[in-house]
Amino acid sequence: MTEFRSIVAATGEPHGDPLVVSTPADVEAACAAAAAAFDTYRATDRETRAAFLERIADEILAIGDSLIEAYMAESGLPRARGEGERGRTMGQLRMFADVVRKGQWQQLRIDPALPERAPLPRPDLRLRMIPVGPVAVFGASNFPLAFSTAGGDTASALAAGCPVVVKGHPAHPLTGALVAAAISKAVKDAGLPEGVFQHLVGPSNELGAALVQNLNIMAVGFTGSRGGGLALARLAQARDVPIPVYAEMSSINPVLLLPEALKARGEALGTAFVGSLTMGAGQFCTNPGLILAIEGEGLDAFVAAATTGVSEAKRQTMLTTGIAAAYAKGVETLSALPGIEKLAEGEIGSTTCGGAVLFQTTGAKFLADKAMGDEVFGASSIIVRCKDEAELLQVLEGLEGQLTATLHMDAADEATASHLLPVLERKVGRILANGWPTGVEVTHAMVHGGPFPATSDPRSTSVGSLAIDRFLRPVSYQNLAQGVLPPELRDDAFGDGAPRLMDGTLTLN
Amino acid sequence: MTEFRSIVAATGEPHGDPLVVSTPADVEAACAAAAAAFDTYRATDRETRAAFLERIADEILAIGDSLIEAYMAESGLPRARGEGERGRTMGQLRMFADVVRKGQWQQLRIDPALPERAPLPRPDLRLRMIPVGPVAVFGASNFPLAFSTAGGDTASALAAGCPVVVKGHPAHPLTGALVAAAISKAVKDAGLPEGVFQHLVGPSNELGAALVQNLNIMAVGFTGSRGGGLALARLAQARDVPIPVYAEMSSINPVLLLPEALKARGEALGTAFVGSLTMGAGQFCTNPGLILAIEGEGLDAFVAAATTGVSEAKRQTMLTTGIAAAYAKGVETLSALPGIEKLAEGEIGSTTCGGAVLFQTTGAKFLADKAMGDEVFGASSIIVRCKDEAELLQVLEGLEGQLTATLHMDAADEATASHLLPVLERKVGRILANGWPTGVEVTHAMVHGGPFPATSDPRSTSVGSLAIDRFLRPVSYQNLAQGVLPPELRDDAFGDGAPRLMDGTLTLN
Repeated sequence: MTEFRSIVAATGEPHGDPLVVSTPADVEAACAAAAAAFDTYRATDRETRAAFLERIADEILAIGDSLIEAYMAESGLPRARGEGERGRTMGQLRMFADVVRKGQWQQLRIDPALPERAPLPRPDLRLRMIPVGPVAVFGASNFPLAFSTAGGDTASALAAGCPVVVKGHPAHPLTGALVAAAISKAVKDAGLPEGVFQHLVGPSNELGAALVQNLNIMAVGFTGSRGGGLALARLAQARDVPIPVYAEMSSINPVLLLPEALKARGEALGTAFVGSLTMGAGQFCTNPGLILAIEGEGLDAFVAAATTGVSEAKRQTMLTTGIAAAYAKGVETLSALPGIEKLAEGEIGSTTCGGAVLFQTTGAKFLADKAMGDEVFGASSIIVRCKDEAELLQVLEGLEGQLTATLHMDAADEATASHLLPVLERKVGRILANGWPTGVEVTHAMVHGGPFPATSDPRSTSVGSLAIDRFLRPVSYQNLAQGVLPPELRDDAFGDGAPRLMDGTLTLN
Repeated sequence: MTEFRSIVAATGEPHGDPLVVSTPADVEAACAAAAAAFDTYRATDRETRAAFLERIADEILAIGDSLIEAYMAESGLPRARGEGERGRTMGQLRMFADVVRKGQWQQLRIDPALPERAPLPRPDLRLRMIPVGPVAVFGASNFPLAFSTAGGDTASALAAGCPVVVKGHPAHPLTGALVAAAISKAVKDAGLPEGVFQHLVGPSNELGAALVQNLNIMAVGFTGSRGGGLALARLAQARDVPIPVYAEMSSINPVLLLPEALKARGEALGTAFVGSLTMGAGQFCTNPGLILAIEGEGLDAFVAAATTGVSEAKRQTMLTTGIAAAYAKGVETLSALPGIEKLAEGEIGSTTCGGAVLFQTTGAKFLADKAMGDEVFGASSIIVRCKDEAELLQVLEGLEGQLTATLHMDAADEATASHLLPVLERKVGRILANGWPTGVEVTHAMVHGGPFPATSDPRSTSVGSLAIDRFLRPVSYQNLAQGVLPPELRDDAFGDGAPRLMDGTLTLN
């Protein structure tokens, strides 16, 4: 296949001109250009790199409304979501600009020489983080802006000093092309080599595989399905030089309704839950796919309100017909499990739309059937009624790794929450109270990550400023002359605003 | 096999009583106990954990001279080295105690709530690092103390809050047992669960494989051969839940003799080089196995001095007869390569001893035969004569990842060094000037790591305080009540001495 088409999500029909599929030669050329640009790009000073990131944000805004129109057509998502996501995309580029300027990411460490030390003098040792090299980024279907071409992976990799080769998601090629052109314009206007950012497109898995296997690529960022993420991780491990894959894959995001909160506001929680479940047709990594509660006062009110809410829910356009079909199949698989009861179903889905579904089971039955713990990407959720706290703990211990866990709790639930906390910490990347997991702030203290299979690497996050650490590695310099040292490690750089660990003691600049 | 023996390195003969080999049931029990101890151990406060690490150091010293005697017999290394290594082992435990107390490793981050933010309020978000879980540590053959039972991997994992299960190296079981008993005494005296530290022994690879495959193990630290490290990494990746393996594997540590330094002191460099090459029978990960120089004044003087030095070198006891045999085979393989010339050979080795060997080749021939770049663990090195700087750069670009690169340089070489630096940064973890790579300081700015295959994971170091980061992962807490938050993230913990990133700005306590 040499061409493919952009599809209107709402109709499943192609629109616009045919698009040229990137070839293996394009992959090769892009990765070679990225490698050639690496030393130049990583040598940029903090201000230059920060200003470049801000310039990208400006260029994305400058695309204007054609970007939002392409976004809406290709994703089926509404204007407000598109504009919000554009703001988020620009916001995270600017946040990384701020992070780059402040310089903490460099992790500068200086251990001065101790010439008088016996029996041997200590050499002068200085450490900084350097970028790992060209990064391959796979755009996500469900965030055509914030997790795609100029999304969090791209922003954090560029912030780290890594050239980026994006494999755009085939579900939004027009959106991707507009953003890619904006980034390339920023690259050019900043006087940087073209290889700093490149964009490949096409519907085949082979394209992505070739990218991950290219030996110039040194790390991979991915948001998508478990199957896709694991396949890329396997390819990355099988290379002559294995590389890290940061794949954000699957999560059912348990929500725990603690007894006192349930007693106090079971009905209100049920209504609010449906709002989170059905938002964006349930197409969030952090969608609440599992409700855990102990039998008791308020649970019936929660279930009743949730049942009503789901029954009344309208079907919604899904991102692609493929996702709609996979969602329908996932719901069918769950429905057929012997231990599960379908509580409610909203408007029935179609080839382009997904309808909300709510199931119920018991703790014992959930424990007996691993299949109930599989992610169904869309507005489907299971309420698990546990007979007591011991069973609830057992269900938690049996869960796979998750992005989030949510506690609905009152002050009188604090002892229970404290008891659960160590288990939750071992299972998830973010623990939240009295809210809903959908809605991921782009801040410094955010973790959008978690134990396998929520991600392929729980040592990191794909959202928030900590994401930059994924693309850095330490290098130590011993007894190097001032003139040869990297500028930020020279004596005359002290006071440049970046914190330093001086002989083990943190100093602010 | 249910028993095995400790071997005297100098004679290849067994000594002491037969030792019981750990069984699969022992592995299972140790990992289960480690998992059971995890939540208790990681809940210890910084002072408790720091004091525990210091207690281990004290207990190791308290073993007394029997430790040094076992060390000398089992390793063939001299008393001064044993005492030095004991000091280093205690020193790194104390360094990690200091690191734990200072608290920077927690990477605390706090983004206060913004209740007035439009369109949606920002929640309160707080982040800390938590330990990953039980860690498997594989003792190294060449550092029976500093990289083994209570070595850097164990010290950094315990500092992070991870229980440790050590698979002791079968080349020094008596040394390992003494150290293990000292650690277990410290565990008991500190009132911690026994599962915080456990020790398994035996000569088979199956024992280590079972340990890495045990699902209670969440990370692996290893120092040893490339074959061993890659095998463990493959096992770790094939698990239902893959885990990171930090394997420090192989490196030939290029030493670059820049023209002006060579002109000024070729002979002195040649003599000093032989000192580094033959130290400890060459059994260092950072042994200088590759000398790179451009043809010109001083190179002949260097070669002459190195040739004399190696010719006069006495053979030395190697750590095991297996290592001595592998060294002899590696030298034989190198000798048989068509493009290589044997310049000098010291006293001939034996079944227990290794003799020093020096080879020479040209840049073109080195580039033509990948086999010249393979590590030969012992006192063997190759001088590569490059015809010009372009060829030298080509040789560098063709090298695999390394732990170190060394520059011998004078002020007039600075421009050349600056030109080479970006290439070296991409290839190695530590760049040093006018010294020798053997000798790895345990400090904050040390990196003992590097791109594959020097290690399996270049994002880290196995020596120095940064090593603690290998065993941590971030967790975010959103809108949690003060009473449920981990103590260090509560408002009343501000000022506890640990630095915090407050809304993106670093504050010292």
